[in-house]
Formats: sequence, structure tokens, C-alpha cells
Amino acid sequence: MKIRLKRLSRKQRKRLMPCIHIKVQNGHFEIVGLGAWYSYWRDPYHLLLTIPWSGFLGMIFIFYVAINTVFALAYLVGGDCIANAEPGSFLDFFFFSVQTLASIGYGAMYPKTIYANTIVTIEAMVGLMGIAVMTGLAFARFSRPTARVMFSRVAVITPHEGVPTLMFRTANQRRNTILEAQMRVYLMRDEVSAEGHFIRRFHELKLLRNQTPGFALTWLAMHVIDESSPLYGVTPELLIETHTILMVSLSGIDETVAQVVNARHSYGTHDILWNNRFVDIIHHKPNGDRYIDYKDFHDVLPLD
Amino acid sequence: MKIRLKRLSRKQRKRLMPCIHIKVQNGHFEIVGLGAWYSYWRDPYHLLLTIPWSGFLGMIFIFYVAINTVFALAYLVGGDCIANAEPGSFLDFFFFSVQTLASIGYGAMYPKTIYANTIVTIEAMVGLMGIAVMTGLAFARFSRPTARVMFSRVAVITPHEGVPTLMFRTANQRRNTILEAQMRVYLMRDEVSAEGHFIRRFHELKLLRNQTPGFALTWLAMHVIDESSPLYGVTPELLIETHTILMVSLSGIDETVAQVVNARHSYGTHDILWNNRFVDIIHHKPNGDRYIDYKDFHDVLPLD
Amino acid sequence: MKIRLKRLSRKQRKRLMPCIHIKVQNGHFEIVGLGAWYSYWRDPYHLLLTIPWSGFLGMIFIFYVAINTVFALAYLVGGDCIANAEPGSFLDFFFFSVQTLASIGYGAMYPKTIYANTIVTIEAMVGLMGIAVMTGLAFARFSRPTARVMFSRVAVITPHEGVPTLMFRTANQRRNTILEAQMRVYLMRDEVSAEGHFIRRFHELKLLRNQTPGFALTWLAMHVIDESSPLYGVTPELLIETHTILMVSLSGIDETVAQVVNARHSYGTHDILWNNRFVDIIHHKPNGDRYIDYKDFHDVLPLD
Amino acid sequence: MKIRLKRLSRKQRKRLMPCIHIKVQNGHFEIVGLGAWYSYWRDPYHLLLTIPWSGFLGMIFIFYVAINTVFALAYLVGGDCIANAEPGSFLDFFFFSVQTLASIGYGAMYPKTIYANTIVTIEAMVGLMGIAVMTGLAFARFSRPTARVMFSRVAVITPHEGVPTLMFRTANQRRNTILEAQMRVYLMRDEVSAEGHFIRRFHELKLLRNQTPGFALTWLAMHVIDESSPLYGVTPELLIETHTILMVSLSGIDETVAQVVNARHSYGTHDILWNNRFVDIIHHKPNGDRYIDYKDFHDVLPLD
Repeated sequence: MKIRLKRLSRKQRKRLMPCIHIKVQNGHFEIVGLGAWYSYWRDPYHLLLTIPWSGFLGMIFIFYVAINTVFALAYLVGGDCIANAEPGSFLDFFFFSVQTLASIGYGAMYPKTIYANTIVTIEAMVGLMGIAVMTGLAFARFSRPTARVMFSRVAVITPHEGVPTLMFRTANQRRNTILEAQMRVYLMRDEVSAEGHFIRRFHELKLLRNQTPGFALTWLAMHVIDESSPLYGVTPELLIETHTILMVSLSGIDETVAQVVNARHSYGTHDILWNNRFVDIIHHKPNGDRYIDYKDFHDVLPLD
Repeated sequence: MKIRLKRLSRKQRKRLMPCIHIKVQNGHFEIVGLGAWYSYWRDPYHLLLTIPWSGFLGMIFIFYVAINTVFALAYLVGGDCIANAEPGSFLDFFFFSVQTLASIGYGAMYPKTIYANTIVTIEAMVGLMGIAVMTGLAFARFSRPTARVMFSRVAVITPHEGVPTLMFRTANQRRNTILEAQMRVYLMRDEVSAEGHFIRRFHELKLLRNQTPGFALTWLAMHVIDESSPLYGVTPELLIETHTILMVSLSGIDETVAQVVNARHSYGTHDILWNNRFVDIIHHKPNGDRYIDYKDFHDVLPLD
Repeated sequence: MKIRLKRLSRKQRKRLMPCIHIKVQNGHFEIVGLGAWYSYWRDPYHLLLTIPWSGFLGMIFIFYVAINTVFALAYLVGGDCIANAEPGSFLDFFFFSVQTLASIGYGAMYPKTIYANTIVTIEAMVGLMGIAVMTGLAFARFSRPTARVMFSRVAVITPHEGVPTLMFRTANQRRNTILEAQMRVYLMRDEVSAEGHFIRRFHELKLLRNQTPGFALTWLAMHVIDESSPLYGVTPELLIETHTILMVSLSGIDETVAQVVNARHSYGTHDILWNNRFVDIIHHKPNGDRYIDYKDFHDVLPLD
Repeated sequence: MKIRLKRLSRKQRKRLMPCIHIKVQNGHFEIVGLGAWYSYWRDPYHLLLTIPWSGFLGMIFIFYVAINTVFALAYLVGGDCIANAEPGSFLDFFFFSVQTLASIGYGAMYPKTIYANTIVTIEAMVGLMGIAVMTGLAFARFSRPTARVMFSRVAVITPHEGVPTLMFRTANQRRNTILEAQMRVYLMRDEVSAEGHFIRRFHELKLLRNQTPGFALTWLAMHVIDESSPLYGVTPELLIETHTILMVSLSGIDETVAQVVNARHSYGTHDILWNNRFVDIIHHKPNGDRYIDYKDFHDVLPLD
């Protein structure tokens, strides 16, 4: 007997659409249908931050035209209430509304009745509020602290000091330094619980170095696959079978904007190359100077 | 003999109204009277962030009308100081003030004396300041980082690998991921101290998994009630007697806005169902794909 | 022989004024002269955040008048360049500048030469920049997250379960909850190092409970003075002699604004009452409801 | 055989310019050429935060002139569409554009055709968006939380309680306190790995006190060079040979702005003076008051 809880309101029910699908394709998850069960309209701020700039500007433009149309209609209702605007001409009233909302006020057209002045009073306040909200949104979009971190296209498993070691490379693409940078690597895979259920489980992979006081150029992440590693004894086939995914999370303080930044990357099973090693990118000149050659950043060499 | 400290100022005294009541109803705390001892007026920014948008807009509207009224009266005092405004007509001066404060300036009315120009100078500055403050407030209201996390209406206690386990479900209602999510569960209940006083004490409940690198869909929190658990040997009656409340706190970094978000939920004693289990919401299709059916998110089944 | 380092620039030298005095009065430090060695002008943003609102508004007003004066003089130089402004009349040009800077533009006065139009172009940009900067500052001032936490005027030392215990009370003055609140108490006192120097040293005092998942009403901080405590065996006279100060730091996440808030308080030696206890403020009604009486929040009773 | 990964897009390739050089000069790293491989144009927000104020204002000015030029040309196309503007006069149309973009609208010139009114409608929206974006940028530049922390020009190695100890001084240059300040010191040097490769490695140096609840005046960082220290047995020559650098990272909460602030400093091998000690800057007056003399902040004395 299934208990349907009475206290759950109708409104909450509606928010919960039937189901979402999770597809595993090419070692990556694909989530389908989640959009359906959580409407954008319930989370407008998040939407306005998420859509690309073109969509953001488009939405502002539509809103701007719509609000001027509403006020133009309000002035139309007032009849001959705007000096030098032809009564009944929607366009005249629309342009008068624009001049008022944007607080331009050329004065070629101006309100001449109490009704028109009252609408102007309201429109002026709406204009001020609109500037306030738009400024806040533009700022929030602009200021989202982001890290520009590049991850190597593949991870490799290669012997290091005699032990097989998982490695991948990262590079800070900015000219500045990410302070107190921390890297975490998680393994996500299907496992069988004691009661025989398939469950999806996270394991954190221990790195030889998981933090650096200053991440300026490149960072080679290394996880030694010893007895304590969840990858110990694992084969490429088993990785695929258990839908294994490596999730990398890098965070630190951007030196320039002094804010915490985050970067993420994930490696599917097909992105992990066994018995390969990365091409060296740090070279020495005859005079002892070092230089980094990013051309080979993603390149690997098979072991002999 | 009670010492009333001399150094406590009269002002501080006044702020401390006699008392507030704490009621325990339906497993939840209810606090009555706290509003009385801490006036809103001492914390305006907090108030402007807390009240709903309708109240916020209402307050701005009232303030906008009030400030224009004040300046209209100031212009009235100046007599025939505004061109094309009828001296003594409050409405004319009010509308002139609106056109000035919102920086529209049609020019049909304009200041023609030094007195009027001086008031205009002041009003222009007040208008600029008002835009600044309103923009800040609107932005702060908009940008409060919030998590849209759904908690199951009830928690259940059900055997897991042979041991009774407290469980509840959470779901991220956004399409994005909460990074480095952490969950903490606290038990709050009345206990008797060594000296026989009733005191209210917090215990943190250990979860089988209390963090996840990426919280995208659902998360089942599990606390094993073994000998080390403060819930060990507790009966439903004892939970009610000790006014037990479970407090859940979930935090993490919202992937989209890159800010720390928090969600909270509490379960009263009546929200904890003994010997029930949650209805499965993760299903497998014949082709191996998984899907999540949120329709049953809150539903439980009694154990046989 | 004292080495004066050559690499220290003249500019850096100047910034370092000779000395600042630290006075110990009534158990509290007083720092004198620090203002001298670090000029406000080198840190204007900090200054604009620190001064009270009256000073902030005053500075904006002065700046606003000054900038309009500068532009008025620029228009004056242009001679008969503004329509309907009397050439040579500073006031006319000043008011025209106000109407331009604040983007009102009545149009009764308007630029009629290329020179005047060029100045208007510059002033318009300055006005836009000014709004931008002022908005940012007003917002930054408004949004500084603050905790409204009250600390008891005194701390007491009273036996608790047989052991002398340092106690003080705090109360959240807001109606909301401070999440994941943490309290830290430090003892700062003069000590003698192994080499006989007097040095000022910090000790953290261990609290019976130093964090709470939700700090809504009151919190009694308790530090047991056992063998491991730096206060073990200390007398009131010794506290004064070593200039002991207790520093309390409380931080957490304000539930409403979702930001980290901090509160601080310090207790001098005269604020620590020995062999006193706090008056109870939590009472029970006959029907079992509890209520808190803040009237006695700061009151203590001597032990018999 | 080198595998060049196919999946790397042409666009990503282009972003990766050949190489950057790292020069070690005077104990400090110098990075050359990084600007080349990551274009500024891909990271405009970061650029606008990084360039000095003069450059920022210059860019805004250029943008402001450019946008007004574009709209002036658009009005020119409309022929005799602006009242009181001479058709074909670029300057008239430019100044009309300024009056519209900045929402001044004197009204001496005003749009008289539908074409001109449509351009005005668009320009008004562009103006509002421009204010929004500029406000956000100005605020973000202003509000970057910075610590004003001074580090001594040199670090010294001097015996302390019989053991050689690395020391350097820091001072908070603000009048306020940095709460919960933490200092971390890292040693970065070339080492030889087990396989004979030269690698650059970080070591954290343990400080006698690495945090303080309140950093108000000065702080002497001390690292004891005992057996557990990576500096144990190291000579000045070895420091130079291994390109050793000390990196200091100080963070805490600025009391005034209630934000986390960070400061960094690095000491090259030439900035570490062996067998020197700092000149005392804390003195006592006859009446017991202490004072700090910042004149000698950077000064050291050789040991006898």
C-alpha cells in the first residue's frame, strides 16, 4: 500500500513533472527532461544569469518595447493630453513614452493634463526601477567569477616511480595567479551494495599534490594507483562496464579580482589512455632559462 | 541581591523589551514577540531585504511620492518661481518635481529664479542618490544566492544492511549542479544536565555520505542508528517527550552563479515515520537507461 | 651598526611616520597616532566605506558642488555660448551645469556653440561615470553584511559541575537565524619569554560548545578553567598585571541575506566578575511553554 | 610517434601560441610571452578589472565617442529628421546623439520623423544598458577587497632560543583590524626527483604562530629551522643554486568591509640575510606605555 501524503499541496505536486531520463553516452551522462519539471518562470534570476548575452539583450529589448507600448496605450486613453502629439496616433504616444521612460524629455512633446502628468509620474518611477534592476542584472552577469583553466583533453595512466599513475594536465589561461588553488578528483562509478542493489558511488582520488599556493602556469595532477586506490586492479573494460567518470574540481582565489573561482572537468572512460605519457612541454634553453611550449599541451606518446 | 549594572545605557535598556515566548507546536518551534524587542527601524537594510517584493515596491512608491511632495512644497514657498507653473498650484509643482527628480526635464516648466534653481540643484542630487541606493537594494534583493533544494516531506526509519537507519531525500530543483555540496544533520532535544537542569542540546548525526562533489539530481541522506548514534534506543514517544527536532543544513557552490548557496529544512517528531521506506524513484529502462520519477518523491511504503 | 636599507624608496619612507603609541587604559588598548602614518588619501575606498553616513553624504555634496563649479567656469570661458544664460553670470552657468550633469536638460538653457556642446559632451560622460561610482559606493556601504549580536556587559567566573567556569551571554538581535555559527574566544596577555623579554601572546580558550547549526536567540559561552586552561590558577590581580583581555569572535551565515557575518566583543579585566552568576532569562510557564526575558540579560547575582 | 589528438578544435589550437619563457632573474621569476597565447579579447571583464584607472577611463571615453559617432551617422542617413539640426552637419547630429544617449534632452534639437524617433528609441535603450554595464564595472573595480599589508624588505635568519630561525615582519597599514588572519609561507625550489629529473617543488614552512584572531599592528613571522624544516642544513649558496623563493600568503577578514582580503609577498634568495636580526620597533615609555616606531621597520642589525 502506497501512502500518498496529504500535506503535499497541489502547487507542489504540479511542480513535479513525471520523470527525467539519464542517458549514458560515450562515458558521459546526459540528462533529458529536467527542464520540464522545473519551470524557468519560477526561477527568473537564475534564467537571466544563465542564458547567453544575445538572449539577455533580446529579452531586455522585448521588455523595453512592451513597457513603452503599455504606457503609450495609457496616454492614448487620455485623448489630447500630450502637447504636440496627435491625439490617436499610437506612434506619437509611443515615442513620448520612450522619451519619458529613458528620462530624456526633449520637451517637444510634454504632458498638459493632470491625467498625463500622473501617468508620467508613474512611468518615471518605473523607469528608475528598471534602470536599477537592469544594472543589477548586468553587473551580476559580468561579475560571475570564472576561472579560465584548460584541462588536457585526455588523462593517461603511466608508470611513475614504478607504480601506475593516473595523470592529467591543467593550465591557467590567465596571465595572473590563482592563489591557494586546490584540486579534487572524484571517481564516480556503479557498484553493487551488500544487498545486491546497483548504486552509484563517489570515491575521492588522492593526489600526490592537491594544492598549490600559486597556480600560474601548468599543473600536472598525479594519482598513484596503489593498493589504497579505488582504481587498483581495474581494467579499461571494467571502467566502461561500471560507467566510470572522473570528475575534477579546481578552486582557488583569483589574484586579480580577489574572488573564489571554480573550474570543472570530467573525463569519461574513453578519455583515459592507458600506457601513454604526456609530451614534455617544459624545456630548457642552453642558458638555463626554461620555457613552456603549449603547442603540445594535449599531446601524448604511447609507451614502448 | 540582584546587581543592576550601572553602565547599561537607557537606550540599550529600551531596546530590550520584557520577553519573548517559544512555543512548540506540531514539532516545530514558534517564536512569538521577538519582533517587539528589536525594532525594524534599527535595521532598515535587513528589513528591505526581507519583506516581499510587493512590500518593497510599495515602500519605494510611498517614498517617491513623499519626496516629491516635500520638494513641491519647497517650490510652492518660492512663489512664482517656475515658468509655466501656476503659482500656488500644488499639482503643477508636484509634477515639476517629478520631472526634475527623475531627470526628465521636458522644459515646458523650468526654474526661473535663483531660489528655484537652488532647489533644483538639491533635488537633482537627491535624485542621483536615490537611483544609487535603489539600484543597490534591487541588486542585493535579486542576487541573494539561494538554493532550490526540495526535501522529502517526511524522514523514515528503516533497516539498512540490518541496522535501523534514518533516511530522507533531497533533490536539486535547478538544472545545474551544486558543487562540493555538504549536508549536516543536527538533532536538537531536551536533556537533563548533571545538576538536574533541563537544557536544550545539539547533536550532529553522522551520515553515511555527507558530501558530494556534484549534487545534480537527488541525494538520499542516511544516518545509521548504531550504538554511537544519539538516536540509539530512542522510541517515538521519547522523541515527542524531549521535543526532538531534526535540523538539516545543505550548502555548496551553485555552478551557474558561482556563489555559495544554503538550504535548510527541519523535521519535527511527527515528520519521522518509523518502519517505512521510500518508494523507489530511480528506474531502469529495458535498454539500460535510468530515469527518475519525481512523482513519488515524497511517497513512502510501510514495511511489512 | 644599523643597516639602513638602500632599496627602500623615499615614498615608502614618508609613509612611515615615526611612531604610534599604545595605551592600556581600563583594561583596553588605545591606539594613538596610527592615523598619522597612513594617510587616508592613499586608501579612499576604505575611507568612503568607514566614515558615517552623514560624512559620506557631506563628501558627495561637496564633490557635486565642486564639479558643477568647474564646469560652470568652463562654460564661462566660452562667453555667450549658452542660450538664455546671461554671459558672465556664474550662477546661470552653474545651474546650466547642474541641469546637464544630472541629465535633466529642461531646455530653457541649451548649448549653442560647438565649444559649449563639446563641454556638454564631456560633462555628460562625467555625469554618467559619477552615477556609476556613487551607485557602487552606496551599494557597498549598504550591503556590508553585519551581525546584530549583543554580548553581555560582563563575563562571570562561576562554578559549573564543580569546576570554575568562565561564562558570558550572547543574543542574536535579529528575528532570523545565524546558520553554522562559530564562536572563538582568545586570551591576550603579557608573558615573559624564555629569554626574559615581555611579549604579548594569544591563547585560544576552549569552549564547551563553540558552534551551533542555528543561532537564533541566546547562547551561553562556557569555558571550563581546568588544568589545561591558560586561566588555571590565575587571580584577579594577575589578570590586571598582565593586561589580560578576552577577545570574542562570532561568525556565521545570516539566513536572510545568505552572507557571512561577523561580530566581535572584548572583555577587559574589569569586565570579568568573579564568583557571580547570570540571572536566569529562560523561564517556564505553567503550560510548559518557555519564554525568554531579555530585561535581565546583563544582570548577574553574586554567589553566596 | 606523437599522437596529435583529432578532437582538439582549430579554435582551441589557435589559442595556444607556441611558448612562453620563464626567466629567473635576481631570485625572482619573470614570465615572458604569456600574453601572446591568451588574447585579452577573450576575457574582456578581466581586462577591464586589471588595467589601471587611467586606461579604464580612456577606454570608456573612446567607447563613448564611438557609440555617439555611430548614432550620429544613423541620424545623418535620415536627412532633415532632427529639428534645429542642420541636415548634413555631422557635429549637430553628434551633439544631438550625446544629448540623447546621456538622456539630457534639452529639446533645442528633437526628432521630428518616425525614422529619427526610432533611432532615438534604440539609442535610449543603448544608453540605459551602457549605464548599467558601466556602473557594474566601476563598482567591481572599486570593491575589489584588498589588504594594505606591508612586508619587511628582507627576511633574516637569526638564532631564537638557540635554534636558527627565519623571520620577517609584516604590518597592517590600515587603522582597522584583520580578523582571523592566517599566514602561510611556502618554499619553492628546484629538486631532483628519484628518476633524476629536475622538478620545482613547494614546501610549506611551519610558523611558530601562523594565525591571529586580530592583526592590527605588526606581526613577526618565525620559522624554526630544525630537523623537520626543509631549510635544515641549507647554505646561502644552495639557496641560489636551487632558485629558492619564499612565498608568503596572508589572508583574513577586513573588519571594516567584512570581506576576505589577501596579501602576498615573495623573498628571493638575495632578500634573505643570514645572521642578522631586526631592529626593535616596540619600545616602552617610562610610564609603561608602549609605542611602535615604524621608522625602523625594514632595518636590520648584523649579529656580532
